[in-house]
Formats: sequence, structure tokens, C-alpha cells
Amino acid sequence: MTASAKARVGIIGAAGLSAGKLMEILARHPRAEVAVAVSESSPGKPVHTSHPRLRGVTDLRFEGFDAKRIASCDVVFSCKKAGETFRFVAEVLAGGAKFIDLSGDYRLKADGQFEKWYKTAHSRPGELAEAVYGLPELHRSRVRGARLIANPGCYTTTSILACAPIVEAGLAGGGPVLIDAISGVSGAGRGAKEENLYIHVAENVRAYRIGNHQHTPEIEQELTALAPGGSGSVTALFVPHVGPFRDGILASCYLRPANPAGLDDRKLHEILSARYAGEPFVRVYEPGHLPQVEFVRGTNYCDLGAAFDSRTGTIVVVSVTDNLVKGAAGQAVQNMNLVLGFEETDGLLL
Amino acid sequence: MTASAKARVGIIGAAGLSAGKLMEILARHPRAEVAVAVSESSPGKPVHTSHPRLRGVTDLRFEGFDAKRIASCDVVFSCKKAGETFRFVAEVLAGGAKFIDLSGDYRLKADGQFEKWYKTAHSRPGELAEAVYGLPELHRSRVRGARLIANPGCYTTTSILACAPIVEAGLAGGGPVLIDAISGVSGAGRGAKEENLYIHVAENVRAYRIGNHQHTPEIEQELTALAPGGSGSVTALFVPHVGPFRDGILASCYLRPANPAGLDDRKLHEILSARYAGEPFVRVYEPGHLPQVEFVRGTNYCDLGAAFDSRTGTIVVVSVTDNLVKGAAGQAVQNMNLVLGFEETDGLLL
Amino acid sequence: MTASAKARVGIIGAAGLSAGKLMEILARHPRAEVAVAVSESSPGKPVHTSHPRLRGVTDLRFEGFDAKRIASCDVVFSCKKAGETFRFVAEVLAGGAKFIDLSGDYRLKADGQFEKWYKTAHSRPGELAEAVYGLPELHRSRVRGARLIANPGCYTTTSILACAPIVEAGLAGGGPVLIDAISGVSGAGRGAKEENLYIHVAENVRAYRIGNHQHTPEIEQELTALAPGGSGSVTALFVPHVGPFRDGILASCYLRPANPAGLDDRKLHEILSARYAGEPFVRVYEPGHLPQVEFVRGTNYCDLGAAFDSRTGTIVVVSVTDNLVKGAAGQAVQNMNLVLGFEETDGLLL
Amino acid sequence: MTASAKARVGIIGAAGLSAGKLMEILARHPRAEVAVAVSESSPGKPVHTSHPRLRGVTDLRFEGFDAKRIASCDVVFSCKKAGETFRFVAEVLAGGAKFIDLSGDYRLKADGQFEKWYKTAHSRPGELAEAVYGLPELHRSRVRGARLIANPGCYTTTSILACAPIVEAGLAGGGPVLIDAISGVSGAGRGAKEENLYIHVAENVRAYRIGNHQHTPEIEQELTALAPGGSGSVTALFVPHVGPFRDGILASCYLRPANPAGLDDRKLHEILSARYAGEPFVRVYEPGHLPQVEFVRGTNYCDLGAAFDSRTGTIVVVSVTDNLVKGAAGQAVQNMNLVLGFEETDGLLL
Repeated sequence: MTASAKARVGIIGAAGLSAGKLMEILARHPRAEVAVAVSESSPGKPVHTSHPRLRGVTDLRFEGFDAKRIASCDVVFSCKKAGETFRFVAEVLAGGAKFIDLSGDYRLKADGQFEKWYKTAHSRPGELAEAVYGLPELHRSRVRGARLIANPGCYTTTSILACAPIVEAGLAGGGPVLIDAISGVSGAGRGAKEENLYIHVAENVRAYRIGNHQHTPEIEQELTALAPGGSGSVTALFVPHVGPFRDGILASCYLRPANPAGLDDRKLHEILSARYAGEPFVRVYEPGHLPQVEFVRGTNYCDLGAAFDSRTGTIVVVSVTDNLVKGAAGQAVQNMNLVLGFEETDGLLL
Repeated sequence: MTASAKARVGIIGAAGLSAGKLMEILARHPRAEVAVAVSESSPGKPVHTSHPRLRGVTDLRFEGFDAKRIASCDVVFSCKKAGETFRFVAEVLAGGAKFIDLSGDYRLKADGQFEKWYKTAHSRPGELAEAVYGLPELHRSRVRGARLIANPGCYTTTSILACAPIVEAGLAGGGPVLIDAISGVSGAGRGAKEENLYIHVAENVRAYRIGNHQHTPEIEQELTALAPGGSGSVTALFVPHVGPFRDGILASCYLRPANPAGLDDRKLHEILSARYAGEPFVRVYEPGHLPQVEFVRGTNYCDLGAAFDSRTGTIVVVSVTDNLVKGAAGQAVQNMNLVLGFEETDGLLL
Repeated sequence: MTASAKARVGIIGAAGLSAGKLMEILARHPRAEVAVAVSESSPGKPVHTSHPRLRGVTDLRFEGFDAKRIASCDVVFSCKKAGETFRFVAEVLAGGAKFIDLSGDYRLKADGQFEKWYKTAHSRPGELAEAVYGLPELHRSRVRGARLIANPGCYTTTSILACAPIVEAGLAGGGPVLIDAISGVSGAGRGAKEENLYIHVAENVRAYRIGNHQHTPEIEQELTALAPGGSGSVTALFVPHVGPFRDGILASCYLRPANPAGLDDRKLHEILSARYAGEPFVRVYEPGHLPQVEFVRGTNYCDLGAAFDSRTGTIVVVSVTDNLVKGAAGQAVQNMNLVLGFEETDGLLL
Repeated sequence: MTASAKARVGIIGAAGLSAGKLMEILARHPRAEVAVAVSESSPGKPVHTSHPRLRGVTDLRFEGFDAKRIASCDVVFSCKKAGETFRFVAEVLAGGAKFIDLSGDYRLKADGQFEKWYKTAHSRPGELAEAVYGLPELHRSRVRGARLIANPGCYTTTSILACAPIVEAGLAGGGPVLIDAISGVSGAGRGAKEENLYIHVAENVRAYRIGNHQHTPEIEQELTALAPGGSGSVTALFVPHVGPFRDGILASCYLRPANPAGLDDRKLHEILSARYAGEPFVRVYEPGHLPQVEFVRGTNYCDLGAAFDSRTGTIVVVSVTDNLVKGAAGQAVQNMNLVLGFEETDGLLL
């Protein structure tokens, strides 16, 4: 493309919630614009019929999947659910566009892990090795050169960014990592399920899928890769909750060092600050301060605060993100910026 | 029944939201207990599978409709939707039980009104004359002797109690009554519609069905009956809204007297107080004070406050109820208390 | 300033809620940046101590008011409360900056109106004539040339944009205009009052200041100016409510034409559409569709939908805005864009 | 008192939130009624000025503390904050009434613990031994004979009931107990703090007081007392959060057995069910089912569900209560029922 032209973006599964957020973010992007919005359920309808906030912002209409149209794009995002991406991948890549998948289809690398946790077959395992896990804070240089990017999950982004520096520092060797997280209900999408009605979510909290949520192996995979040589794999107990809010995740992460000598809040702050120095989207709080969901809502930030409980020898890292932004659409744009050579923060500052 | 035995209550449509509230109220009732809970969609299942709050409170299981079982009841509530009650009425009445219908099937008395507003045929119009409109504050003595009671709607209870004293006093002759009301989303039941998801209700407000909501003719029917002789029918513009809360309604009612001379807040307070003196479930606020939804949530109260705007010659009455209690299940129990000769407040005080 | 330099913005009362929103918007603005943030209560503290969302976005610190510093600005916003702006005006204007006041101090033009509704003296009445009422959709050309701009109130923006086309068309002559509005609680700012605690706002709705809210005369002033010649002044009954949401306003506006012949939803849509054709921040909905608070949250849009109730001869216009954006900080930036010669939409699209 | 007379109840600190809930519960109680409501800040005012929901329910007025009036009571509840109860105790006990303290003043038995965690002196340590920790499920028989009852905290009730059976079974020996809990904001009372405003609570979650909340030693004290002989003290890391809801607590409790052999969800269910068989206010869920805050709101229940994560060898018990009922006022009435010889469930069923 020429210097003046904007990159052409395609979106598959464009009627969903994360796709709507993606289009909102891209509407502000200086160097990219949505050119093709694929929704197989509502072709021909104006985009604002599914995304009323975009009324007047875009005149685009949904369309069916068409390889030629997709081949005109520089980058294609898939917002389909896990297991529903495979049938599009070959044609998108053949057309020359970069492919950024917001589902879990390309995140788990080890044999059989996808099948085990998603309870469905992976029809294109040959591409797993090529797909880059798109967490820029861990894999920035690989993202830059990728054709196929597995955009991380919301809980996983929030959890991994919290735990990574502690694991890297060798301070998680005293047992399994425990992650107790609470998410707003937008993480469940816009499907009309009774459990997600206002009457069942408001003034309520519920835990679910204790120890068997599909984000568990994603967290373990990434943290294990960071563990100091010889320290073995990281095991995690991940317990998600749903709370009465729309957007955002707060994860309280508990890690136990084998040897806690010398640890305190200040030391933890140093470790986190050093690890994320220069990162545009990670903010580390001073000792004694903790982030809140409100502070990151609508933004691409992941905010971190940590404390050491000397009575029990436990490190606690509190991490917050907006599940639809840093946890999905925002991080996808961050990855797009990297893969297309833009400024990493384009379209993403507040 | 003997003095010591409790009245036997049957509920048709027992898996719904208002039925759940009804069972909660009856669990505290000193003189009645649920004996038969009919749910055609989940016969055999414990009641607490649909109403988790009732776990341990009742061991009842849902059952299919059975005329003999129903004939063992002293009173039967129907929590079915409008148009779905007709097929049960004959058998319930034949069995000897009083019938209290929470739907709109027997509320509108005039020929063709039900069909016009509910867009469906009324299959038992011959019973309309017998059915008593169950707003005790207007029709207490008729309720006492009724076999068939049409329990009023939630918006209508809230609106009629606010406007009735003003209309009776001849102070609504200066034009149509305007009722601008906002309801919590429990009024829509527990059906899994996208519009009622938390993500679309929280931090949102919407107006709907401007001027054509089916509660409009119910309000007009009752207020017209109260208008002083010769003053003609009362016309109302009713505009409902849904807000981000679970239970409750606030109705702001605007009435214009033909001649406002001498009106002020104090005079309005006198009119309302005099009308509802001795009423156990209507609370009238002092001039300068207004009720809030919070003050009546979970209770059978309708709270009223009024102001006169002399600049525009408009009377404003603010009325609040809990839509599932005074607007549905609580009022139904109030009617049951009357029809079975109990204390009107049994089971309903806080 | 040079083509490349950004305009320098000063903010007085920079620790408040609307100031925070203003800084968020300006952080994305291509041609302006905050240079001076005055907070007399917390000079020296980093801006993010009051506005945690701005952590890492700005390094600015609050400072006391200093005429020289302010004179270095191209435009100054005041986010102080009504009655607290006067002491800054002379120095700001003397320094050469444009002054955009978000309070009510310069909105009411007629003698004694400010004193009557705000219950405090106006210490600089001589400037009232010069101050332009900053509703661009009504006064765009005057805003462009203004030194002193009275940014409209949140309720008033929402209400006036809804009613203006109807009044201009001569369709509001059948009685007072009635505006029943509900606002999120951010309209009350961040002062620690018991009534604004979560426990008293959540799952609650309350009406307040019936007929005597200070936004009433602002609405009447602007609508009266639009009424067709000879039709006299417009009187309004404005009834505000607070609901359980943070941001946003929905106003249901009721107007009665003296002669409703020929009116219907389509005609109303034509009137509104024609009036706002080309307006970047007003979106008019097709007949049968109504705007919701959710659709405009975080944006500078005012969305409008209208219906005609033929049974009562009443026009209903439903209008929604984000009270902190189009109702405050966004509109202030829109005014800044006009007064500094920028694109009107700069920094404001989504 | 005679069989027919109701017990006379006094409340100190009667204008607060938990006192309001207490009066709501007592309004339904068949054998007790509030006779004296002490509020030193608003003597003479009707109770409903602080508790609008009680309008019409009680005609009581607040009064100052008067030893004679208090001596006329059978039982006195104190709803004052920690450290503010001491000055009333002697006079209440001297008057012959039972004293039920809802604060933390008499909960911690070991020397210096109160001072350490509450940062204030305990002025009546001599009474600590006599005061019974009022968790009926642990100390029912001692409560029956008590003069002075320390009503447990909200977090502690929720946490202890979850962990007690596991600790008793010797399954918590593999390390510290971790309790990650989230509470509605009513736990903070009605003081007007900025952090508890709707605008800062809604759509937000925050962690606070990691490892140093004053409920921590209360949990440790009670669990340690239950640990099998020789297994030593139980150490707990308690991490509280505040979420966007009014009432309720959900605690996710993590316990690690030294030897997890043979553990599974079914075994955990057996342990919990056996422990709480016959308990009127503890409901244990079947394997695979988890309680939610919604299921207990407004009730005196504590609902429990458990899962065993074999991958990490961790027991997870999810526990929910209404923080103002089983976590405060409801449990206080349960204690009153025991101490006065009433049915334990009087006034508390739903």
C-alpha cells in the first residue's frame, strides 16, 4: 500500500461482541480501516443493525465470505468461536493477508491439548507450529514476522502478564500457581442464554468450571516456557467467576516461592517494573497500591500491583484488563500494528 | 378447612419468575401453603431446580396439570402469559377453587379491548363480567366475594394508585393523563432474549412501546370509572422504559386540572392521604418528600409522593412499587387473603 | 501557533469528574494537548492520583492558579461549579485565551434568571451578553467567533436538541413542554454524599427537584428563541430522575401541537432529519426505532427517535446522550474545535 | 415474660445499615419486637427517617442511651463499630439483658490479638473469656447459655462454615488456607466515602487489605480450634475484594490436604453434608453444583459447594451468604433465638 492509503482490514464473524469492539477501535485508527465485514448470518444488513454504536460511523454492510474480497485485505481478524476458524484459514493465507485469530484454535501447541480442553478435533494441526502466540510482551519479535497469529484469551492475558515476571525470577517453585479471577459478563458474548440475563447476573457472583476452564493449559504453556532452566513445568489452578459488570477482568494470582527469604512488596515492585519497563500497555503500581477494573475499562492496559504476605509466604499479584480490549480486540489491533509495521500504540491510546 | 390447617394453594405456570416470588411469599404465610406446583415443561423436577432460593425451603416437585389435584386446592394462581390461561379456567372453577389470574386475560372488560391490545382472541368472554379486577384499594368488597380475580398489571397498579385520588377529585380534566414509567427488567420474565442480557441492560435505559403498551387500556378503564359524573372518559399516554435494575417500578404521573386554583403540594398531600387512610399497603409521603424504588423493594407497598408545578399547572404524582410484589405476586396474595377471609396483610408485612 | 504545534489547553477545576473526561478526550486529540491543570486542592500531585485512568497517559501534575501560566494557553476550560467561575474569567480573558465554562454561570441571559435559579449572585453580569451559548447545532457561527463560551448543561443539551425542531416547526403550541429525564449518577460529580453511594443508587430510581431544577430556564430560553414569530414563550416542566447507571441521560420529551392534523411518525422523522442533516453529532432514527443510552455511551452523539401518539395528540421525542461527553466535556471540545478553527469532529469520533 | 408477650429488644447504633436490616427481620419475628432504638446522633427522630423502608412498619423513634430503658429489654444488640461497644457493656449486662455485639470487640480471644488487628486498645479484656463466639453451627450449646455473645463477622462466617468440615477432617494440612472473597459494598456501611460512591463501585472490582484484614485472625482462631489434635495451628491468607453489588459475599476457599489420596467431589460432598446434617441454615450442594450469591440474598442461609482439583491437589469450597443477614443481623437474630429459648429459625425462614 502507499504511504497515504490505509491498510484494508477484513473481519470474519463481524456481528459478535468482540468484533464490534474491534470496529470501534479501528474507527479511530490512523492507518487501518475495515473494508470487509463478514457475517454469514446477516449478509446485506448495515453493520449498525448489529452494532448500534457504529450508526453513522460506518456505512459498511455485512457480507458473506468471499475469497476474492478477503484477498483484497492486508489483514484479517477472525472473531469466530473456537473450532470455527479452521475452514477460513487456508483461503485467507492464500490471499496474502495476515491472519489474526481471536479464538483458541491456534493457542495450544502441544499434541492433543486442543482436543483435551476444547473437546473437539483440530483439523489443521500442521499450522500450529507456525502460529505465533500473540502476546507482544512475551513474543513481540516473533509476532512481527508472523503470518498467523493466535490472539490470547482474556483470562490468560490478564493472568500471564501478572505471573510471568515472578516465574521468570524463579519465585514460583513452592507449589502450583493459583489464579482466582472474576470477569464481566461480556466475556460470554451476546448469545441469549438464561444465565446471562440481567436478572441472573446483577447483584450476583458465581464461580464456574473450577479447574477445567480451557484457559488453564494456555496459562501453563506460557508460564512453563518462562520457568528457569531445570525448574520443570508450571501447574496452575485457575478458578473463574462471573460478576455483575459488563467489561473487565480482575485476576488475583497466588504464587509461592520455594524460598521467600528477602521478599517484600518493594522487591516485588522492582521485579515487575524491571520486566515491563518500556512496555506501552503494562502499568505497574507502587507498593501499597492496587489496580482496579475501572482504571483500565475501555483501554488496552494491563495494570499490575503486588503484595507479599509474609505470614503465609505467598506472593499476590493483582492484575486487571478490559476483557474486550487487552483481552481481545485491543490486543488484536496491537498485534496488527506489529505485523504491519505500524506504531504499536496506533489507535490504542485510551 | 379446619382452623389449624393451612389453605392449600395451587400454582399454574410455577416455573416462572412471578411464581417463584409467589412461592417465596407463601413460604412465610401463616395460613396458606403451596400444595400443587404445575409446570408443564418440567414435571417431576424439584421446585428448587427452577427456583434455587427455595432449596431446603420446600420439597415440592413440579407436576403436570391434573384436575383432581387442582380440585384439592382452595385457591389457584395462574402465572401463565396472557392468552394461556383460558384452557385452565373451567376446570379450576369446577373444582371449587378460587382462581387468581396474574395475566391480562380478564382485566379488560369492554368488548374487543382484549383483542385490540393483546392481538389474540379471548376464548371465554362470557366470564369477563364475573371476573373482579383485583386492586383491593379500589374493589376490596367485590374481591372478597369473587370466584375469579384478574390480578392487575405491574405498571397499572403503580399508575392507577397514583392517579385515582386525583381523578376522583376532578383534577384531571385538563387533558390526557401522561404516565412516564421505568421498570426493572424482571418485568420481562426469565425468557432468554438478547435484549434482556446483562450486557444490554446494565448501564442502559430504553423506552419502548410508546403509546401502545397493553397496560394503557387497563389504566384508562379504571380511571374512567373513577371520574366524577359527566366528566367523560380518561385518556392516557403511557410510556414505559426499562432501566438497569432487577425489580421495581417508578411511575411519574402527570395530570392537568382544568382549574388549578388553590392547588399546592399540601393540598395534594391531603387528597392522597385522605383517600388512602387505613390502607395497609399504600404509604403517602409528606410534601417535599418523594418515594424511591429502594424503599419498597421486596415489599407489597405502593409509595406515593406528589408535587404541583404552578408554572405549568401540572400535578406530578410519583409512585413506586416492587413489580413482582405489589405489581404481581404480593398483590395476588393480598387478593387471596381477602377471598379466603384471612387478615389482608398475612404474609405480606415486609 | 505553528502548523505542527498543538494548541495548549488549560483546565481549571481539573480534579473533578468532567475534567477527567476532558483530559481523556484530549489525550486522543490530534491538535490540542493539556498544558496546565489547575487544582487548588491538590497542587503538586500527579494528575493520575485523581484520575487513575490517566496513569502513564500524562505526566502532568496539578498546579495552583497562576495568571502567567494560564496566559500561555490558547484555550481554558473551567470545570468549577456554578458560582465559582467568576473569579477566574477576567485573568483568563486578559491573557488572551478563549474561555469555555462548563458551569451554569453564563448560560442564562435574562436579568435575574441566574440569581433566581442558582440562588446566588452573578458577579459579572456585564459579560452575559458576550458569552455565547455553546450548543453548536444552534449557534455554530457565533461560537466560532466567541471569546467566552457557556457550555450547555447535560440535561439541557439532551432536551433542547430533541425539542428544537418541533418547536421551530410550530408544533409545540398546545401547552407546556414536558421533559421527563433520567440521568446516570456521574452527573452529581464525585462529592461523597450518602445519596450517591452505591448502596443507595444501585437497584433504585428516584425523582428529584420536580419543576425547579436549574436546567429548566436554560431549556425555556433556548426553545423560546426558536418558536415561530408571535407564538410566544415556551414553558417547560422538567422532571429529572437519577437511575442506577454511571453515565448517560435519556430524556423523554412530550410536546403537544395545537393542531396535530397530518402528523405521524414519518412526518416527525422528516422534520428531525431535515433539521439535523449534516450535523456530525446528531443521529436521527428511522420511524419505529428508538435510541438507547448504551448506543451513545462514551461518544459525543445525541441520538433522537420520535413517535406521534394520535390517541392523545402528543409528540414524543426520545433523546440520549452521554452526560459527561455531549453533555459536558465532549461538547466543550467540540466548541474548542470551532473556536480554534479545527475540524469540528477532531478527537471526538467514537 | 408471659407466653403471649413478645420479648423486648433494644438496639444500640440503630441508625446504621445492619441495624436497619435487624429491624426489618424483627418486624417479621413472631416472638420479639424492637422496644428501644438508640441512636446518639438522631434522638427523637422517627426510625423511618434513617430507614425509609420501615415507614409505616414501626412508629418507633430513636432515643439516647438510657440505662433504665435498656434494663427493660430482654436482649440488646449493639451495631456500633469495633471499639465503640465497650462503654455500653457493663450497663446492659447489669440491667439483666443478654448482649449480642455485632462488632469485632469480643471475637478475638488470645492476648493482644484485638489490639494487633484493630489498632486500638481493648478496655474490657476481662470479659473476653465469658463472651461466646456466636456461630451456632460451631458453638450452639454455649450460645444458649451465654450472657455476652460476639456475633461473627460477615467474611468470617462465610469462610469458617466453608472450611470447618475440611479442617476437622484433617484435610487442610498441606499448607496455609487461602480464602479469596468478594463482598457487596454494603459491608462498608453507609458512611459517605468517595470509594463507595456508585461511580466508583459500579462496573468495577477491587482487591484490598491483602493479608491484613481484621477478619483473618478470627478465621484462624476458629479453624485452629477445629484442627485434629497435634496438627497445629491453621494459618490463613485472606484476600477480600469489593464488587459491584449491594449485598452478599462469595468466598472461594482453597485448602491443600497433606495426603489427597482418594479425594474427589463426591467425598467432599459427603464430608460437608455429614457435618451440616440438620443445620437449618447451611445448604450443601450436590457434586457439580455451586452456590451463587443470588440464591441466598435476603436469607439467613450459608450455601456451600465443593470441588477437588486433582491436577493440583487442591480442595475448593465455594461459600455464599448475605453479608447483612447470615453475616450480621440474621445471625444475630439466630443467636437471640437460641439465647431466649425460641425456635432457632423464628423470623428467619426466607
